[in-house]
Amino acid sequence: MRVFNEIRLDRGKKTPIYKQLYYEIKQLITFNKLECDYKLPSIRELSDLLKVNNSTIVSAYKLLEKEGYVYKRAGSGTFVKKIDNDIVDIEFINSDILYDFTNATTDSSLFPIDEFKELMNRVIDRDKGTTFDYQQSIGYLPLRKAIKKQLEEKNIFTSLDSIQIISGTQQGIDILTKTILDYGDIVITESPTYSGALYSFKSRSSRIIEIPVDRDGIDTTILEQKIKNLKPKVIYTMPNYQNPTGFSYSIETMKKVLELAEKYNTYIIEDDYISDIEFNNKKVNVLKSLDTNNRVIYLKSFSKTFMPGIRLGFAILPIKIQRKFLLGKQFSDISTSGFIQRIFELYLKEKMWDNHINKITNIYNKKYNLTKEYIKKYKPLRLRYYRPEGGLNFWFSLPDGYSSKKLEKYLRKRKMLIYSGSIFYANNNDTEYFRINISSIELENIGKSILILFEFIEEFMKDNSNKTLNHPINYFGL
Amino acid sequence: MRVFNEIRLDRGKKTPIYKQLYYEIKQLITFNKLECDYKLPSIRELSDLLKVNNSTIVSAYKLLEKEGYVYKRAGSGTFVKKIDNDIVDIEFINSDILYDFTNATTDSSLFPIDEFKELMNRVIDRDKGTTFDYQQSIGYLPLRKAIKKQLEEKNIFTSLDSIQIISGTQQGIDILTKTILDYGDIVITESPTYSGALYSFKSRSSRIIEIPVDRDGIDTTILEQKIKNLKPKVIYTMPNYQNPTGFSYSIETMKKVLELAEKYNTYIIEDDYISDIEFNNKKVNVLKSLDTNNRVIYLKSFSKTFMPGIRLGFAILPIKIQRKFLLGKQFSDISTSGFIQRIFELYLKEKMWDNHINKITNIYNKKYNLTKEYIKKYKPLRLRYYRPEGGLNFWFSLPDGYSSKKLEKYLRKRKMLIYSGSIFYANNNDTEYFRINISSIELENIGKSILILFEFIEEFMKDNSNKTLNHPINYFGL
Repeated sequence: MRVFNEIRLDRGKKTPIYKQLYYEIKQLITFNKLECDYKLPSIRELSDLLKVNNSTIVSAYKLLEKEGYVYKRAGSGTFVKKIDNDIVDIEFINSDILYDFTNATTDSSLFPIDEFKELMNRVIDRDKGTTFDYQQSIGYLPLRKAIKKQLEEKNIFTSLDSIQIISGTQQGIDILTKTILDYGDIVITESPTYSGALYSFKSRSSRIIEIPVDRDGIDTTILEQKIKNLKPKVIYTMPNYQNPTGFSYSIETMKKVLELAEKYNTYIIEDDYISDIEFNNKKVNVLKSLDTNNRVIYLKSFSKTFMPGIRLGFAILPIKIQRKFLLGKQFSDISTSGFIQRIFELYLKEKMWDNHINKITNIYNKKYNLTKEYIKKYKPLRLRYYRPEGGLNFWFSLPDGYSSKKLEKYLRKRKMLIYSGSIFYANNNDTEYFRINISSIELENIGKSILILFEFIEEFMKDNSNKTLNHPINYFGL
Repeated sequence: MRVFNEIRLDRGKKTPIYKQLYYEIKQLITFNKLECDYKLPSIRELSDLLKVNNSTIVSAYKLLEKEGYVYKRAGSGTFVKKIDNDIVDIEFINSDILYDFTNATTDSSLFPIDEFKELMNRVIDRDKGTTFDYQQSIGYLPLRKAIKKQLEEKNIFTSLDSIQIISGTQQGIDILTKTILDYGDIVITESPTYSGALYSFKSRSSRIIEIPVDRDGIDTTILEQKIKNLKPKVIYTMPNYQNPTGFSYSIETMKKVLELAEKYNTYIIEDDYISDIEFNNKKVNVLKSLDTNNRVIYLKSFSKTFMPGIRLGFAILPIKIQRKFLLGKQFSDISTSGFIQRIFELYLKEKMWDNHINKITNIYNKKYNLTKEYIKKYKPLRLRYYRPEGGLNFWFSLPDGYSSKKLEKYLRKRKMLIYSGSIFYANNNDTEYFRINISSIELENIGKSILILFEFIEEFMKDNSNKTLNHPINYFGL
């Protein structure tokens, strides 16, 4: 109770008292001043202590519950929840893992190190100290020119001013949240979707509305209904090889989404992490290339197709948000490394990029086809499996009632990493879904790895009941 | 009036209606849907249109005015203000500038390029593809170990877990705002202070309380009073060679600030950008080294003393915020370049750093002393000049009533860059103060540059009246 004495509520503030109280208790929880399962004071006790109405305490506790900081036990009170940080645990466990189905980048043996090293030395010899001086926040001009040219080959015609260099897509999303979103604004996302985007939107206290994706992409009927009623500030999408499902938007879905954005005056973020790769020679449509009304904010990552460690990507920004985004970039990290930008510019210019993409496409295709084949071969009958359009993510579901969070822990003990599907949903609730990614598994080990994965899963299902899932989520529309 | 039809207010939301309206109009302004000097609808018109009380409109307009989005003209209404982006315009103008008194980094000819290149090649030959793989978000372990060791020489004893690598101090501030601050929280800063920090705090809608600094550092009497009454979440400080004034905290001020933080349970951010350099052999005290209660969040930049383009720094974090900060880092840019971290680790280990700091100290000292000498020699009698303790920032004031924003523009036309003091204050109002920094001016040009600067300023004062300053700010206590 002692820590609650420290709480100060200010009636002079415009923030409602219940919300001030919510913040105060939230701080106590996040700063570990209240431990997991600590019982909060009763409504009565706290209202006496703080001299506020019962209803204020009730509202604050409700909000804490809604935001996942506390839970209620009927009849016995309100308790501090363990803050579940699993959601964002993307640290690597290099130690003793034998099968890593979480890593979404190629094996580092495929990185074009020799070419990179050569270009690096050339850049330093050419630019001397300037290489390491401050870099313009918008990015190195010759690189932006090279990107503009490359985009034209994909039927994206844009001005140089629209191209903004970023330190990876995650940063792009993070800056966009600062640029576009205010406290309480509505964001529409696909469901399931990339956990890093969910986190950024949450950090801005946005209200996230999740809309199911299926084989043709986002459900445009639900989308229209939600856009119409809720006026979202932005829609976050991965139209190609969606993460985690692997689905791609049909051309009709793409057109419909663009039409809705124009009709209801909102923006679409297109997160493009792998459209450079064509799977089985199927042509890839980039949403941005169909965007005649400048509704799409295009974010491009090189982490999955090139090397994650370079922390380089770019955004194409509609004119109205360019200036604000640039300021957000300046105050995020001033600029992306000018050194890396200079090297990458040469890399693009000397056509090394094209060669690299050809090589990677070849390998990704082999891995993709082989994985599909082995999954079929091993007939994971008790699992539901959603065949992806491409990409190296594969999305499964355990039979009803099995917990994928438990499966994740079960496998980790057996030196195997997968992602429970829970991280791909805003509420982070446990689910039957899980994702595997075979990017970092060597071609010759794919068959064996999948076999072992399925064996472990069968064992897991024998060892566990299907009644462990407390909060099953609804299936997305398949 | 048409755009106002688009405004949707939701009575079901917990956000008060006036605040929803505030956000909606703010969006219209920021997204340029309402132009500068556009007259907002009258209270009556808008309350009719939106079917809300007059008082709701009044509160929303008041908040817009307070936040600087609109201005009132007595008797004629409320108008959209020009959004002044000058505050954060840190883009470089490489074009035709002859004298750059804004750049706070050394001339790039002093960057240790050859050593860096050699180490770079060694790192790639040693680590191959791993060099460019994902990097742990907390940072490269051997680098963190090397930093720990270096800190011990400065009497800072900390655990490895507390050392978090960041992509420069600006990123550190940005992540801290996400980690510690909620909407409406109070932050205390020095006044004047670094504009990038002010921007980050504003972006989180914090309430900024500015406390004057003088020759001994922040005014601890005012500080105590404010801390006591306002319960700030954090206090942002630059105890050594404060930017922009160049003042350093006395040891008494340091101790008092630490005592207050402990007494009133708050954190202090110590932004350390240049304490490695001793000026005139005066010993530098780092606040963190006196911090027995783990109240100091220490942010260290290498931009000013090494090379800004490497985008590398580190934070020392109190245990309670380590985990949350790490998550914030992951969702800002996943990690700082592992490549650069590997190179810098060798750089520290091979004592190249020590040699570099010796060299830079020598040059910085010469520049600092020479600048002071020339300022004295040219007797800028009509300017007030606040002699700095060290660092390469020099803080001046024009005579009363002269606008430093105008001076900045006046000089820019003459191919000379300075910073108007306005960017160092939260309200960004015009002021008599301005900052010059001589880091990037070559030693042999310092005398001449200062002479020309003063000549231009004299001309400016002849060409302009001293009645141009509309909103003079109070002097800080000198």
